Amino acid sequence: MNNTVVQERSEAANSSAQSAQVVPLHAPDAKRRVAEVFDRVKAEGRTSLTAPEGKLVCDAYGIAVPQEGVAKSADDAAKLASFIGYPVVLKIVSPEILHKTEAGGVLVGVKSEDDVRAGFDTIISNAKKYDPNATLVGVQVQQMVGAGQEVIIGAVTDPSFGKLIAFGLGGVLVEVLKDVTFRLAPVTRDEAASMLDGIQAAEVLRGVRGAEPVHREALITLIERVSRLVDDFPQISEMDLNPVFASPSGAVAADVRIVMDFAPAEPRYRPTQEQIVTQMNRIMKPDAVAVIGASNEDGKIGNSVMKNLINGGYQGAIYPIHPKADEIMGRKAYKSVKDVPGVIDVAVFAIPAKFVAHALVEVGEKKIPGAVLIPSGFAETGNHEGQDEIVKIARQYDIRMMGPNIYGFYYTPKNLCATFCTPYDVKGKAALSSQSGGIGMAIIGFSRSAKMGVSAIVGLGNKSDIDEDDLLTFFEQDDNTEIIAQHCEDLKDGRAFAEAAKRVSKKKPVVVLKAGRTSLGARAASSHTGALAGNDKIYEDVFQQCGVIRARSLRDLLEFARGIPKLPTPKGENVVIITGAGGSGVLLSDACVDNGLSLMTMPDDLDAAFRKFIPPFGAAGNPVDITGGEPPSTYKNTIRLGLEDDRIHSIILGYWHTIITPPMVFAKLVVEVKEEMKALGIEKPIVASLAGDVQVEEAAEYLYEHGVPAYAYSTELPVAVLGAKYKWARGAGQI
Amino acid sequence: MNNTVVQERSEAANSSAQSAQVVPLHAPDAKRRVAEVFDRVKAEGRTSLTAPEGKLVCDAYGIAVPQEGVAKSADDAAKLASFIGYPVVLKIVSPEILHKTEAGGVLVGVKSEDDVRAGFDTIISNAKKYDPNATLVGVQVQQMVGAGQEVIIGAVTDPSFGKLIAFGLGGVLVEVLKDVTFRLAPVTRDEAASMLDGIQAAEVLRGVRGAEPVHREALITLIERVSRLVDDFPQISEMDLNPVFASPSGAVAADVRIVMDFAPAEPRYRPTQEQIVTQMNRIMKPDAVAVIGASNEDGKIGNSVMKNLINGGYQGAIYPIHPKADEIMGRKAYKSVKDVPGVIDVAVFAIPAKFVAHALVEVGEKKIPGAVLIPSGFAETGNHEGQDEIVKIARQYDIRMMGPNIYGFYYTPKNLCATFCTPYDVKGKAALSSQSGGIGMAIIGFSRSAKMGVSAIVGLGNKSDIDEDDLLTFFEQDDNTEIIAQHCEDLKDGRAFAEAAKRVSKKKPVVVLKAGRTSLGARAASSHTGALAGNDKIYEDVFQQCGVIRARSLRDLLEFARGIPKLPTPKGENVVIITGAGGSGVLLSDACVDNGLSLMTMPDDLDAAFRKFIPPFGAAGNPVDITGGEPPSTYKNTIRLGLEDDRIHSIILGYWHTIITPPMVFAKLVVEVKEEMKALGIEKPIVASLAGDVQVEEAAEYLYEHGVPAYAYSTELPVAVLGAKYKWARGAGQI
Repeated sequence: MNNTVVQERSEAANSSAQSAQVVPLHAPDAKRRVAEVFDRVKAEGRTSLTAPEGKLVCDAYGIAVPQEGVAKSADDAAKLASFIGYPVVLKIVSPEILHKTEAGGVLVGVKSEDDVRAGFDTIISNAKKYDPNATLVGVQVQQMVGAGQEVIIGAVTDPSFGKLIAFGLGGVLVEVLKDVTFRLAPVTRDEAASMLDGIQAAEVLRGVRGAEPVHREALITLIERVSRLVDDFPQISEMDLNPVFASPSGAVAADVRIVMDFAPAEPRYRPTQEQIVTQMNRIMKPDAVAVIGASNEDGKIGNSVMKNLINGGYQGAIYPIHPKADEIMGRKAYKSVKDVPGVIDVAVFAIPAKFVAHALVEVGEKKIPGAVLIPSGFAETGNHEGQDEIVKIARQYDIRMMGPNIYGFYYTPKNLCATFCTPYDVKGKAALSSQSGGIGMAIIGFSRSAKMGVSAIVGLGNKSDIDEDDLLTFFEQDDNTEIIAQHCEDLKDGRAFAEAAKRVSKKKPVVVLKAGRTSLGARAASSHTGALAGNDKIYEDVFQQCGVIRARSLRDLLEFARGIPKLPTPKGENVVIITGAGGSGVLLSDACVDNGLSLMTMPDDLDAAFRKFIPPFGAAGNPVDITGGEPPSTYKNTIRLGLEDDRIHSIILGYWHTIITPPMVFAKLVVEVKEEMKALGIEKPIVASLAGDVQVEEAAEYLYEHGVPAYAYSTELPVAVLGAKYKWARGAGQI
Repeated sequence: MNNTVVQERSEAANSSAQSAQVVPLHAPDAKRRVAEVFDRVKAEGRTSLTAPEGKLVCDAYGIAVPQEGVAKSADDAAKLASFIGYPVVLKIVSPEILHKTEAGGVLVGVKSEDDVRAGFDTIISNAKKYDPNATLVGVQVQQMVGAGQEVIIGAVTDPSFGKLIAFGLGGVLVEVLKDVTFRLAPVTRDEAASMLDGIQAAEVLRGVRGAEPVHREALITLIERVSRLVDDFPQISEMDLNPVFASPSGAVAADVRIVMDFAPAEPRYRPTQEQIVTQMNRIMKPDAVAVIGASNEDGKIGNSVMKNLINGGYQGAIYPIHPKADEIMGRKAYKSVKDVPGVIDVAVFAIPAKFVAHALVEVGEKKIPGAVLIPSGFAETGNHEGQDEIVKIARQYDIRMMGPNIYGFYYTPKNLCATFCTPYDVKGKAALSSQSGGIGMAIIGFSRSAKMGVSAIVGLGNKSDIDEDDLLTFFEQDDNTEIIAQHCEDLKDGRAFAEAAKRVSKKKPVVVLKAGRTSLGARAASSHTGALAGNDKIYEDVFQQCGVIRARSLRDLLEFARGIPKLPTPKGENVVIITGAGGSGVLLSDACVDNGLSLMTMPDDLDAAFRKFIPPFGAAGNPVDITGGEPPSTYKNTIRLGLEDDRIHSIILGYWHTIITPPMVFAKLVVEVKEEMKALGIEKPIVASLAGDVQVEEAAEYLYEHGVPAYAYSTELPVAVLGAKYKWARGAGQI
């Protein structure tokens, strides 16, 4: 095609010139109007919108953009400019020219009719030089906006989370610093508002150095509407409003860029919440378990599974399945699950990968709702066909599959150890899962060592089917579980996870260790927003949006799972440190700031009350420094006061080992005061840091067992556990 | 005084107009020229320089500023402008008007002679309105600079560190993000260069989005010269070059602000390195110890100290001092140290605060070089007079004092427990100190529990005299110490600490836990640089500059002290992960990035060599994933290969507990291969993360004892320890 300025005024151009006023609200026929634009783009085989098309879309959704029109001639341009008002911006309109500035196709600050005429000619001539084959629709004449703070609002399509909306400040600097925040689209107004506060440079928007703050509501509206647009139209792949000029009086997007992807994404299997609950309850709390590949032979996985089921104390029916054996470990064996007379809830597979598909069909025919696939040799070894085959069978028979490539799972309320690992029997309220077997073993080891009470430990492995959101949905309604802690490397369906987590985290804390956060790889991105999106930042922000507590390390995951359920929910933000060691007080204060906790400003009367119990050279205020040489009564009196006064919501204890108050004396007095107050209906989170000789280890253990997360030689861990509890309480709207 | 434009051209103005060319190098008479300016400022009772004075100072030190002169009249201004070239900036010059923009005293981009004349009149008239009493020296006519990236270079005077130089990008945004970096002044060119790379937005200076990089050498020169200026003239309190315009062709400071403080700071006592070594050696390795306040009575501190000295196995002379007793714990007691016949190296005080001064005089008269002051009741309780009194005595008699308000100290090579705490006898190479007694107890407890070998544990308490730099200087030359780990809340003399640390860290790792990093308080600051300086960021940057490894938590301090001396120094940056658990591999990779370690890109031949030992579905590359079901030989072969190949410098092991390779089998094979390679002269750092059931704890302990820092249930700690070793090796120039 040769260069020509297309002769007729396009519909877009007409429409733009007429709808100069920004649509104030989401127009009633918005969807239809936008769909028309996209249909045309698709019909023309394009994947990006021209500026006038972008404006049509924005107008329909009430996304504020500058007044503008497209001129076909210098005369046209002059007329438009005088209608819009000077100064104006001139920009080439051509479907082939995406990088307009590079093409010499942009002139800003054009101030007079003569300049507009000359500018029109310059731009057309530059564009012809830049790409002789480009279709030149005309020159866009646009209201010049430029006052205010530049921000960027955009949207991307994440392979796992789907549509995400992004917000950040504009400019090279922020691009370098990657100061941008993401939310799942669509967002509520509150979520949009949280984005303004969610960037590091948030202060800029509030007005610094005497500058007026930007118009928050206008920005919130823009974010909300962009998020609704991309949610309504999945075919929008990426979108940029860049820059948006945010001023005290409003916010206008100076440039709009929309990239389309008309190839529909393959839908992932998404059972309903009810379906998940029904099937997961049968799998996790089965009345009958079949072990496919059960064996009498020591060292075989099928033998370990049988042993663990039996020795673990499982009281339901156990059906060993083996092609030849008649009896395995004293139980009648069957050649196939189909030969078992009764109902089976779950089948544990302990056979080589190549036999799985056949056995899975039989599981389907037997109408068993769950398959626990221990065998490896599927996708993790490159055998994607094998995995696809079993997924197909599972869908055909409506079997939910755990794995393959897992250690199995534990559900302690049923004494169920459906795994080849060692049995685990310390019952409690924490449900843990891991994507990796190694991490699963670390969970078991740590739990046993720390005497952490566990309701379930689940291996998810290749996650061909059951994944984190299924577990969330099961544990949500499982009365034996009070906290859910998950290790994952990816989320096959981040959107489903986020939806489940948002709901579940309102009721029970959800802690996630997301591994692989640094192996981002450079994702191909054709928009600014896309380029800003590091996968890990997305996880960070979405977790926050969904009330998920993110563990920064394996040890944090484990300590949070152990500690959070021990603590009652705090009733407010006021934290007080009571310490025998000034040095611990300082480190505990540091840890409070690191973990987002608020050290209460001590009211005068309370300060005076504390002072009554401590030596004159001690320090009230916060930390309350009772000093090192004090007897048990001083600890007791100050802790009691801290619990009694209802302005204080949580207490952090710093213990210093002395002859006068030895470690176990301290531990016991803390529990005593705590119980005394509990009898009066007062329950507050208490955590403790113990500095001293090795006897503090026993004291810490005693405290932990009695509901006070306590750590020897660490000022960080107790505060991190309390901080995690607060993060949950805030996300769940409890404080 | 009433408004008048001072009639004679000041010397400064004349000089400025003539020295329009930037002085290319530190002028030979620079100091004299600057001193003249400062003398005049001081004589006039001012604390800030006028712009022309600032220019004189900058010119003398070769700090590039725009060409300029001061005009007394509109004619003058027009002449100057035509000499400098248009456009120009006009600025009011008045000693009383510091905030020129607020006063309407600045006009930028003035383009013609007429505009300059009109501008002159406007500025004078605005200034008169703003402050009718201000002396109006004239209007500065300045070369307009504005191309390039705005940066800020400044200097502040820190109460502890003295002169610090600061560098950051300009603009509101960076001020909000506090993206600024500090170094002790003066800086070398290398240190100045490290500042350009030391800000978060460093990429901007290297050129982003096709922009040319700024002139690095010009910026480095500016930083270096400003640092030399403030070092030469302690009376400069704060200095701002803001903004500096850095372009591809150079860097010019568009505005200079210098604030003076002519009140000299009180000098702190600074013994020479030789003096420190001589006295500290007698204190830390004494042949004779006096215990002032020794007691036979159980529960008394003087009793505990005697017991610890005797039971700890100290072989030197012990002299109990008591006003009444004749014998204490089987040793002859003396009424005063002066009654002791022999030489005494150190006196441990175990008497109430009120008796300390008197006894200290006797210690001085006896020419004992060191006093260990256990008693509390000094500055920490508000008794500053008491502390000042003993400091005065100590200086008078040249006694070095440890404390007061401490637990004492341990020096294990001499079996010396000069403390009231429990004895500690696990000898080793780590020297630890704490400012706080509570943290000291945590050090003792952790060390005992983790079997950490210790050379010394020292309490510093109020640090009336001996502080961290004295300890650094002692441990530097102490053959029994290989690593120094210090907890501190403040540094009384940060400058002395930094100088010692810079020297010592080249030989031995120095790890510091700086507590109180979040209790910054808002320091009054009259410059931009001052306002940017959060105390903690200063510690962060100075530690980095001095090769100090900063521990982020108490546990890190302890783990680093324990782990770093176990590891040989790596010979290069290439780290390889060998793991049985893919999941651990991912988390270990994350930890490598978090700790600044470089995962080696696996060369093809080495990849092929690893592949020979691992199953086909395992993954070579890095991590080398040997997969979970492998026998001991696979671990052995791959670890041996990793040690043998000299392209690999360090190894991180991820162990997965299996029946085939149980924990202790793994631990022993690792040590076996390590010893085998050591016999061949190959030593590389190896750390390990163990995932498994509780038996991995014993395996981790075995590994640690045999020189492999290993942790159960943690993927973070082993990598953090290795990362700390690398940080040291880099800082010390070992790699």
